[in-house]
Amino acid sequence: MNVPEFIRRKREGEALTPDEIKEFIDGYVAGNVPEYQVSAFLMAVFFKGMTPEEAAAFTRSMLESGDRFDLSDIEGPKVDKHSTGGVGDKVSMILAPLMAAADCIVPMVSGRGLGHTGGTLDKLDSIPGYKWNLNEKDFKKVLGKVGCAIIGQTDNFVPADKQLYSLRDVTATVESVPLICGSILSKKVASGVEALVMDVKCGSGAFMENEERANELARNLVEIGTALGKPVSAIITQMNQPLGIAVGNALEMRETIDILKGHGPSDAREITLVLCAEMLCLAKKAANPVEAHAKLSHLLDSGAALDKFKHWMEAQGGDPDIIDKPSLLEVSDETDVVEASRAGYVQSVMTRDIGVACNTLGGGRMKKTDEVDLTVGLLIHKKPGDKVEKGEPLATLHHRGGKGLEDAKKLTANAYRLGEAAPAEELKSVIGEMRAR
Amino acid sequence: MNVPEFIRRKREGEALTPDEIKEFIDGYVAGNVPEYQVSAFLMAVFFKGMTPEEAAAFTRSMLESGDRFDLSDIEGPKVDKHSTGGVGDKVSMILAPLMAAADCIVPMVSGRGLGHTGGTLDKLDSIPGYKWNLNEKDFKKVLGKVGCAIIGQTDNFVPADKQLYSLRDVTATVESVPLICGSILSKKVASGVEALVMDVKCGSGAFMENEERANELARNLVEIGTALGKPVSAIITQMNQPLGIAVGNALEMRETIDILKGHGPSDAREITLVLCAEMLCLAKKAANPVEAHAKLSHLLDSGAALDKFKHWMEAQGGDPDIIDKPSLLEVSDETDVVEASRAGYVQSVMTRDIGVACNTLGGGRMKKTDEVDLTVGLLIHKKPGDKVEKGEPLATLHHRGGKGLEDAKKLTANAYRLGEAAPAEELKSVIGEMRAR
Repeated sequence: MNVPEFIRRKREGEALTPDEIKEFIDGYVAGNVPEYQVSAFLMAVFFKGMTPEEAAAFTRSMLESGDRFDLSDIEGPKVDKHSTGGVGDKVSMILAPLMAAADCIVPMVSGRGLGHTGGTLDKLDSIPGYKWNLNEKDFKKVLGKVGCAIIGQTDNFVPADKQLYSLRDVTATVESVPLICGSILSKKVASGVEALVMDVKCGSGAFMENEERANELARNLVEIGTALGKPVSAIITQMNQPLGIAVGNALEMRETIDILKGHGPSDAREITLVLCAEMLCLAKKAANPVEAHAKLSHLLDSGAALDKFKHWMEAQGGDPDIIDKPSLLEVSDETDVVEASRAGYVQSVMTRDIGVACNTLGGGRMKKTDEVDLTVGLLIHKKPGDKVEKGEPLATLHHRGGKGLEDAKKLTANAYRLGEAAPAEELKSVIGEMRAR
Repeated sequence: MNVPEFIRRKREGEALTPDEIKEFIDGYVAGNVPEYQVSAFLMAVFFKGMTPEEAAAFTRSMLESGDRFDLSDIEGPKVDKHSTGGVGDKVSMILAPLMAAADCIVPMVSGRGLGHTGGTLDKLDSIPGYKWNLNEKDFKKVLGKVGCAIIGQTDNFVPADKQLYSLRDVTATVESVPLICGSILSKKVASGVEALVMDVKCGSGAFMENEERANELARNLVEIGTALGKPVSAIITQMNQPLGIAVGNALEMRETIDILKGHGPSDAREITLVLCAEMLCLAKKAANPVEAHAKLSHLLDSGAALDKFKHWMEAQGGDPDIIDKPSLLEVSDETDVVEASRAGYVQSVMTRDIGVACNTLGGGRMKKTDEVDLTVGLLIHKKPGDKVEKGEPLATLHHRGGKGLEDAKKLTANAYRLGEAAPAEELKSVIGEMRAR
């Protein structure tokens, strides 16, 4: 193919055909199209975007570059959720067993945290014995038995995305909406899902900081999913405060179990139920979100989801005793407290800085090669709208030997904006606009 | 340096500092910044442009990447001309000895033709014995003795441009104005010029097909030249018809000698005089273009320029007998004629197609590796505004054994648009808007 001409046409905003997009991606994966041409193409896409048809062809080409899990011999609707990444987001570990309890199949292939956001695999690493590196056969065995499983990417899982992701990272083309959509959707479709609910985070702790960008991403995910023949529903949720109370790997796993027991912070529980209700509707197991919500609340409160969680742990090697002995999820007992410098109301929390504070303590990675300490993190005591007295604790920091403590305290203290009056009600709401499927 | 952040800032339209631009270009030439990052940067520049300061720093960084001819021990103002490329453009070979006759130094480093346009080195290759591959020492020797010299690039001549040019070619980033300016100006400044006149071609045979783009390029060249401390004047000339009558290497050299003898087509003579007049003003050897034009016309008509041409040939190994025996410039005697299919007036000539017809006969290269036959080409008998009878010759094609003849005839015939009425006068004019220095 004439690659410069292919790039030029994208540069001029002309639409590319599915066949030539596939030839380009295949050529890249095979090593025949050099990276310097791919990166010029990615930058042209950053400026000119893609039509839904182009983006679907791009996603399909990536999808076809490697393994594609065949779950057709497992009974039940295969549904999944994907979040664009936030702080304190432990939804996946609650959602997977809850949906399994509702007779759905959740074939989740997850990743690690990077930047200020956490990653599901890191959180699961805090569970003694949990094995995330299953092959396709064992993954399907767990899915057939339990209904849910969470694993890491297999070696030949969407290699086009692995290559493109690394290249985007070093060429300042990460933020392009069609490239983000292709990366997410190719992996989800490769994992065998039939329908997907997207949790598009928006706010100070999200990659999409404003609603316009979040809406654009949501709309594109729905359009491209449709073009691929996979129903996608996107829900925009606020990430202007950490989700729940716990930020940090073992701390978040403890909170996960709290919520599965019917306790825990209401925002994390509610977001989980809203996302699951949407999934249940896509799976045609409920007529509408209201009916779905009621059914799922019952499954959570009755202990059915917790029961599934136990079976899931047993199936993937995790110690099920963590349910009754949360101390098996090791949290550092060295703590320090960030106190309010004045009395007033919490106006806002710069949520990204809370995520960075957790990283600073050792709880996440800013570079891929950083080691993660699963035992550190933060407990958030005050959220937007809360009234505080001077000297009252805003957050407790679990650290290891004081590592990164001073910086983390500064980041946390500065993340809180306090004011005289209570903030407007909308600042406190967590679930934003829901997009039509 | 943080290269992704550098690219991201350009992508967002932020201005880059001279130091970081230099670090980036140095890193690229040294092999420390990979091509996939450079190409993403080039595409970001395509979309976001550069400020004059950025473009000057970019040009300076390229300039500093290799040899830089020091002409300070040669007396006289060092001036040069550069054209953006056209069809039938033999100006350089007339202009260089003419300016030398006017006591200026013209240190011309030229290139080969590519695409539909011709190249000066190819034209010079038709002169028996002419040596273009001089080193800096011999180049300076000729300049000191004659006042003008035309050579090809030395091995270490602006290596950053060599690398960037190849990369732009395969990543669809050739057309970016600041990248074009950097490429042109870095080479011109490296060749030792103190002032430059740019011939920006505009029209159906030029790379800039419309006036808006030609104006943008002209304005940028002047601005960046100023920022580099080198006066640049840009003149926009029409390339809506081949320049002169001859198109093809040996044919154009024959026409060159005609013009140096005071004969030849008036459009090529007039453009040369206008460009030279501008150069003479920049060199402060004339008070204004009118005075300069009169002086230069005299040098041409008196034979002083032809005399310089002879000395130049002797100094660079070319056979001076070509002046009296044009047959030494070998032209194929196999000819065919394209005739007018109807009576009427020539409305326009698709000039690019005339250039492509010459290539098709073997007279140019569409790919760098194509071999060039110096003996083939076209003589253009009818130009826009000319009245023709049905069956009258429009052009004579010199071919070799019929190679490419049928295609070239078709291209030539289709390039002519004939109509009932004479075209508007402006269509026939050759010299367009002149830009202020």
